[in-house]
Amino acid sequence: MFLPRKILEEKLRRILAEDVGQGDITTALLVPARSIAEAEITAKETGVAAGIEETSILLESIGLEVEPLISDGEKIRTRQKLMKIRGETRTILTAERTALNVLSRMSGIATTTNRLVEKLRKARFRTKIACTRKTAPGLLYFDKKAVLLGGGDTHRMHLDDMILIKDNHIIVSGNVEKTVKKARKNASFSKKIEVEVSNVKDAVTAVKAGADIVMLDNFSPKQVEEAMKQIEKNGLSGRALIEVSGGITAENILDFASKHVDIVSLGEITHSAEAFDVSLEITMIGKAHGKL
Amino acid sequence: MFLPRKILEEKLRRILAEDVGQGDITTALLVPARSIAEAEITAKETGVAAGIEETSILLESIGLEVEPLISDGEKIRTRQKLMKIRGETRTILTAERTALNVLSRMSGIATTTNRLVEKLRKARFRTKIACTRKTAPGLLYFDKKAVLLGGGDTHRMHLDDMILIKDNHIIVSGNVEKTVKKARKNASFSKKIEVEVSNVKDAVTAVKAGADIVMLDNFSPKQVEEAMKQIEKNGLSGRALIEVSGGITAENILDFASKHVDIVSLGEITHSAEAFDVSLEITMIGKAHGKL
Amino acid sequence: MFLPRKILEEKLRRILAEDVGQGDITTALLVPARSIAEAEITAKETGVAAGIEETSILLESIGLEVEPLISDGEKIRTRQKLMKIRGETRTILTAERTALNVLSRMSGIATTTNRLVEKLRKARFRTKIACTRKTAPGLLYFDKKAVLLGGGDTHRMHLDDMILIKDNHIIVSGNVEKTVKKARKNASFSKKIEVEVSNVKDAVTAVKAGADIVMLDNFSPKQVEEAMKQIEKNGLSGRALIEVSGGITAENILDFASKHVDIVSLGEITHSAEAFDVSLEITMIGKAHGKL
Amino acid sequence: MFLPRKILEEKLRRILAEDVGQGDITTALLVPARSIAEAEITAKETGVAAGIEETSILLESIGLEVEPLISDGEKIRTRQKLMKIRGETRTILTAERTALNVLSRMSGIATTTNRLVEKLRKARFRTKIACTRKTAPGLLYFDKKAVLLGGGDTHRMHLDDMILIKDNHIIVSGNVEKTVKKARKNASFSKKIEVEVSNVKDAVTAVKAGADIVMLDNFSPKQVEEAMKQIEKNGLSGRALIEVSGGITAENILDFASKHVDIVSLGEITHSAEAFDVSLEITMIGKAHGKL
Amino acid sequence: MFLPRKILEEKLRRILAEDVGQGDITTALLVPARSIAEAEITAKETGVAAGIEETSILLESIGLEVEPLISDGEKIRTRQKLMKIRGETRTILTAERTALNVLSRMSGIATTTNRLVEKLRKARFRTKIACTRKTAPGLLYFDKKAVLLGGGDTHRMHLDDMILIKDNHIIVSGNVEKTVKKARKNASFSKKIEVEVSNVKDAVTAVKAGADIVMLDNFSPKQVEEAMKQIEKNGLSGRALIEVSGGITAENILDFASKHVDIVSLGEITHSAEAFDVSLEITMIGKAHGKL
Amino acid sequence: MFLPRKILEEKLRRILAEDVGQGDITTALLVPARSIAEAEITAKETGVAAGIEETSILLESIGLEVEPLISDGEKIRTRQKLMKIRGETRTILTAERTALNVLSRMSGIATTTNRLVEKLRKARFRTKIACTRKTAPGLLYFDKKAVLLGGGDTHRMHLDDMILIKDNHIIVSGNVEKTVKKARKNASFSKKIEVEVSNVKDAVTAVKAGADIVMLDNFSPKQVEEAMKQIEKNGLSGRALIEVSGGITAENILDFASKHVDIVSLGEITHSAEAFDVSLEITMIGKAHGKL
Repeated sequence: MFLPRKILEEKLRRILAEDVGQGDITTALLVPARSIAEAEITAKETGVAAGIEETSILLESIGLEVEPLISDGEKIRTRQKLMKIRGETRTILTAERTALNVLSRMSGIATTTNRLVEKLRKARFRTKIACTRKTAPGLLYFDKKAVLLGGGDTHRMHLDDMILIKDNHIIVSGNVEKTVKKARKNASFSKKIEVEVSNVKDAVTAVKAGADIVMLDNFSPKQVEEAMKQIEKNGLSGRALIEVSGGITAENILDFASKHVDIVSLGEITHSAEAFDVSLEITMIGKAHGKL
Repeated sequence: MFLPRKILEEKLRRILAEDVGQGDITTALLVPARSIAEAEITAKETGVAAGIEETSILLESIGLEVEPLISDGEKIRTRQKLMKIRGETRTILTAERTALNVLSRMSGIATTTNRLVEKLRKARFRTKIACTRKTAPGLLYFDKKAVLLGGGDTHRMHLDDMILIKDNHIIVSGNVEKTVKKARKNASFSKKIEVEVSNVKDAVTAVKAGADIVMLDNFSPKQVEEAMKQIEKNGLSGRALIEVSGGITAENILDFASKHVDIVSLGEITHSAEAFDVSLEITMIGKAHGKL
Repeated sequence: MFLPRKILEEKLRRILAEDVGQGDITTALLVPARSIAEAEITAKETGVAAGIEETSILLESIGLEVEPLISDGEKIRTRQKLMKIRGETRTILTAERTALNVLSRMSGIATTTNRLVEKLRKARFRTKIACTRKTAPGLLYFDKKAVLLGGGDTHRMHLDDMILIKDNHIIVSGNVEKTVKKARKNASFSKKIEVEVSNVKDAVTAVKAGADIVMLDNFSPKQVEEAMKQIEKNGLSGRALIEVSGGITAENILDFASKHVDIVSLGEITHSAEAFDVSLEITMIGKAHGKL
Repeated sequence: MFLPRKILEEKLRRILAEDVGQGDITTALLVPARSIAEAEITAKETGVAAGIEETSILLESIGLEVEPLISDGEKIRTRQKLMKIRGETRTILTAERTALNVLSRMSGIATTTNRLVEKLRKARFRTKIACTRKTAPGLLYFDKKAVLLGGGDTHRMHLDDMILIKDNHIIVSGNVEKTVKKARKNASFSKKIEVEVSNVKDAVTAVKAGADIVMLDNFSPKQVEEAMKQIEKNGLSGRALIEVSGGITAENILDFASKHVDIVSLGEITHSAEAFDVSLEITMIGKAHGKL
Repeated sequence: MFLPRKILEEKLRRILAEDVGQGDITTALLVPARSIAEAEITAKETGVAAGIEETSILLESIGLEVEPLISDGEKIRTRQKLMKIRGETRTILTAERTALNVLSRMSGIATTTNRLVEKLRKARFRTKIACTRKTAPGLLYFDKKAVLLGGGDTHRMHLDDMILIKDNHIIVSGNVEKTVKKARKNASFSKKIEVEVSNVKDAVTAVKAGADIVMLDNFSPKQVEEAMKQIEKNGLSGRALIEVSGGITAENILDFASKHVDIVSLGEITHSAEAFDVSLEITMIGKAHGKL
Repeated sequence: MFLPRKILEEKLRRILAEDVGQGDITTALLVPARSIAEAEITAKETGVAAGIEETSILLESIGLEVEPLISDGEKIRTRQKLMKIRGETRTILTAERTALNVLSRMSGIATTTNRLVEKLRKARFRTKIACTRKTAPGLLYFDKKAVLLGGGDTHRMHLDDMILIKDNHIIVSGNVEKTVKKARKNASFSKKIEVEVSNVKDAVTAVKAGADIVMLDNFSPKQVEEAMKQIEKNGLSGRALIEVSGGITAENILDFASKHVDIVSLGEITHSAEAFDVSLEITMIGKAHGKL
């Protein structure tokens, strides 16, 4: 998910501009135009860093100097300093909340993702944690990138990069077999085909029909086990990746992973993301441009 | 927070466009161009509706017929049908996830807000619940409107609609008294002035200096009580609204409200919003335009 | 009204881009690509500077070096040099008109505003001069900032930062008392409430009902006097700010101010702004990049 | 200047969106969502209509019904009703100011232009009134169209539609003769070439060198007369159009026109436009959608 | 490649707006505002239709009625009527060129693609024709959709929907084996991995290393044959799709296809697309709205 | 066609952003964030350079260093190096295709245009080669500028910079004489008037009626000759420029030029532009920022 910095800048600046409206009236009243300052962003809990790049790009793009003290993807300790910022005091104070909002959302998602990833790693499962398209509206890029930094898989980016046949598509198109075959025949060779199934029989059918990935939707661990067995029995093992989705939580995730599924996907890590707690403090102030 | 529908439409369509990318390739492969369908959005838990208007506007703006079955601000029962949708099957399936993402975020925020509002109401406190500017980046309008629908107060919209003097402004500008007076003297008559204070003494000073609202930041219930007493003792009662913020949770909120503060504000209801669970099901399909 | 420079840059560049269309064909024909020049912007009358910052940002954002010779808000003498510009000759000539249009509109508004402000100051009245939302369409930021630099008050920025109840709202909502009380009850604590009234009785009612500001619309100086008296008689003095609006001109403004009103607001200073006369002259030309 | 309505709509809606910000909070508080109303826009002085089309498009594009009672370009009497509007009360009140700002600016410019046009017509001169690129920043389309509706000439639209050689171009490029010839040789055949001159000799040179239009900049009526004579004496009459510009006012315009110049151009009609006085009144209110 | 109509509309209207600039001055001068007309778009050669949907959406979005007489993907005969259009004459004439530009580019690409597809079909090869990312700048959606309508494969949409390892990636990352394995290990499970190779040995290595697709870049038919043999000999047949690219023309395409490759990709069908010849004629004119 | 660099940057970056989507996933997987590289763009055929400026601006705007080795408008030899690029390897690889697409389209158009220009020059005709508005949709600026660099004439930029009366305008407006006179009377003095005619008689009429340019549409060389004769016979020589258009190819262009027409215009040079063959190769890689 590499975006040239200027493209990211524009995304981020649109977010800032909305928050600023016709201008920061508090700062204009209280902070002299020529005042400069130094500030620090500090973590108030432990987690995994995400959004350090985005926050730096936003702040630099409005003329501030940024010195990141951690890289995206690294572990954060409580009270760790994440970033130093220097420049016009007005600009720092006007951008403070938008910068922290980006950083705390992305680090929050990375942290939650990483807890699940670590849980599977410690239990020595190879199952991947993936997110879904259930992100905050319009924050697809930020939410998916944070999952990646937490060690998760982005899954489909948006609607043009993978064939993902869901329940409603099957209702419209006919049964699983027919639908997968139709997709197989007409899809671009460049795309994978995934299909969501709701019972063991359809899971086997989907693999047979040529799906690259089969998503077992709302299966219990038992049903997952049964599906894996039937796939094996039909000599179809390894023909498709198996993803489970629906009803999975931090508590029961190992029950699913223990069935040797390839991917576990959860909407919660993005749609109900918990913010990571960070704060920005002014550490020094100077009265004229260029002097602290 | 009334936005003419066309302005809202453009905001919403930009969100949809990002998710669609160069086009929905699954739907294009599997759903005939002339197919039409009927679908329903159903709640899977109890809560408060928000985003019914936004979801309807989004769907109507891309050519679908929408029949809302509930109004924003109303209580939702589990399994309640929230909306009927009719139109091109392809369009319904392509917009499904974006529509649900908007609806589940907004209803999630309204539901959480309302739980707190109800808690205070039942305890017969007049204290208001307010959100902050700690929203998901770029979702200020949606997050604040959801708070309003849940019975909360939007607080400041963005940086141009209120003077809100925070810790960093005071560091730059001098002490509380000087800063509030400076703001008082130079601010537009059309704006209120709020100041964030970190101890009881500053709280009293702020009221004296003429702040319209004083925010007690990270005070314990005891400190809040002490501040209220000192304000009264100085004959300043009723001169400013009192807001408490920081460290407030669903569990301890009554301890703060019982101190007769006017407003309790929490970042959590927007920055760590939990999604409200909704789903969309196709209920009927027709093969040609105009016939179901 | 502090906007980070990059956000302002984008606003200004959109204005320039419209004027340039598919490209400046005159300059492309006549000015060699490598030619560089030095230019000066000169005032042709006396007034108050506004738009120095905006013009500088515009010109710098397209690669020119700018040396402002005056600051926004300062007095301008006839023939005073306001700004030196260096860089690509083509860029200077292409941006000339857009830069001057911004500067002459903003300085024109600041100058007119300042004449009224000075008139009141000399007569030793404390009344503030305020503008309204009657700006040139789309120029809200520029027009309001110019008023501020001329010593005026911006009044409401746009529709989301203050409750301003106008005649049409009262027609829809009922009478003044009911409407103000309804607003008082439901408005966010962060917003002031102003109400426009058309007679003395309603003015008193509005103050009583809890309005923060009462606007006497189209009152004669006599009616203003009567309103002030009635407010005092009812023991309501100081409970609300009093604004007068409608029919006020440079000639009669002292008649209104002498009634001790807090604010006088005029649409004319923005909707019928007179341009301030400035010109740009090339003062030196060099044939190659880097040499003058 | 024909723009398909949808393109104009987007320009106008961007202007409205800026004014609305995060939403009209007054209207949301006081006007029920289902309330509908009827309103009228009325003129408060005499003039020439412009912006009736733009205002209608703006209002219709946000869902209101509009019945224009006058066409652009027609004369307006004091107290004449210009437009009826029906629809959601909230939408009417939210868009009121933006709509009136467009209408009053455009009609103001058309009215001023038309006064000059009529003055020349009554004096039986064929001289055209033209505007310049000295418009309000970003309002090029609206200002130029208003001039056209007032009977004036738009002159150059922007920098890509005509070669207009100004003083600074000549400084860079050499003398008038050389510059005009260079432009003549290299310009697209599809464009006219105009040159600005500052003395009689250069005027003659410019015509000789092949300019399509010669602009006499800051000439006194006497100098204009002399220039016309010299052009005739050199047998160059009719070879180029003659435009005068600079120092022209409503008072002295006949002195210039009497010299048989083809075009008189003035910056004032757009850069110092006086707003035309209009107001919007709610005339009827209904409580439910569809019923007045 | 299904895009909801409103999203497509905005793309198309931006293209129209650029062409219209500040307005169609010819049409405004010559065509009365109330004039309505009927027009037809006619093909002047044989081919395959593409852009019928896009052209219709563009024209309908600016208020015209459109009756398509052919569907995208169908064969076109010389002189066949493709579309009827009714509505405001001014709007038809203003949009004519933009509409024809879209239609002739897309139909041109579909026609060229289809000639190659038919050639392979007649020779009974199963090889697919694919395009590349070598489109006209910014026309990715239109160019790729036209290829699809001509019977070709869109290949990768943009940089986020497939791992495509090119020569420069291998230079940076090391050798083919290492690079493919690295991609295999870290890529999202949702994406296919393709690698471009420049010799037979690397082709075999790439298949072995786990590439989903191997692109033989600038191979002669002989080298392609040798690569296929070596892959078979190594027992790797069917493990990856084989794409050939570079130096392929309408003349030699059968030589490549005869080697049983899966995909032949060509930049020419999009980067050097030949326009399909179409014209628009007014067939009827009416003087007032609503009457022809 | 001079556009300030920042305005061009935004156009170009929008094109890049579309291609990048949510990010370059291949580069993110395979290229370390701190890797830097040097690359070269090389021509693979002979032609005329165009787009060197645009490509440089695009690449520089995303943080790369660019050293152009040729200027726009100069002749290119096969295997000539056109540009050196240094900077972040990821950024180079992500922007590679968009940069090459711009360069190869523009140089392709300049090369084709220049072949025709040279053909006329060698035959010693003064006839100009012009393009039309038949460009790739949305690429008006790029296509027209490339024609200019190839030695051609841009003709009309868009719909606001010239009165060009086409067949459909005449159908609506009446006959050639009436239409030209109407345009003459009402058009801005700043615009030329061109009219398209379909027979010799109308050509003569058009000149007589005062057209600045007459376009002989789909005339054979014989008919062109006849038109020129009739114009001369009527004493109208030199009164209007003569343009021929329709059915002109590289083969027959001299037959038209030999009739002493002023301009020959062709849609093919832009609507069916052939891409110029260029490639980008990484020539050096460094492991850390700042070191190659």
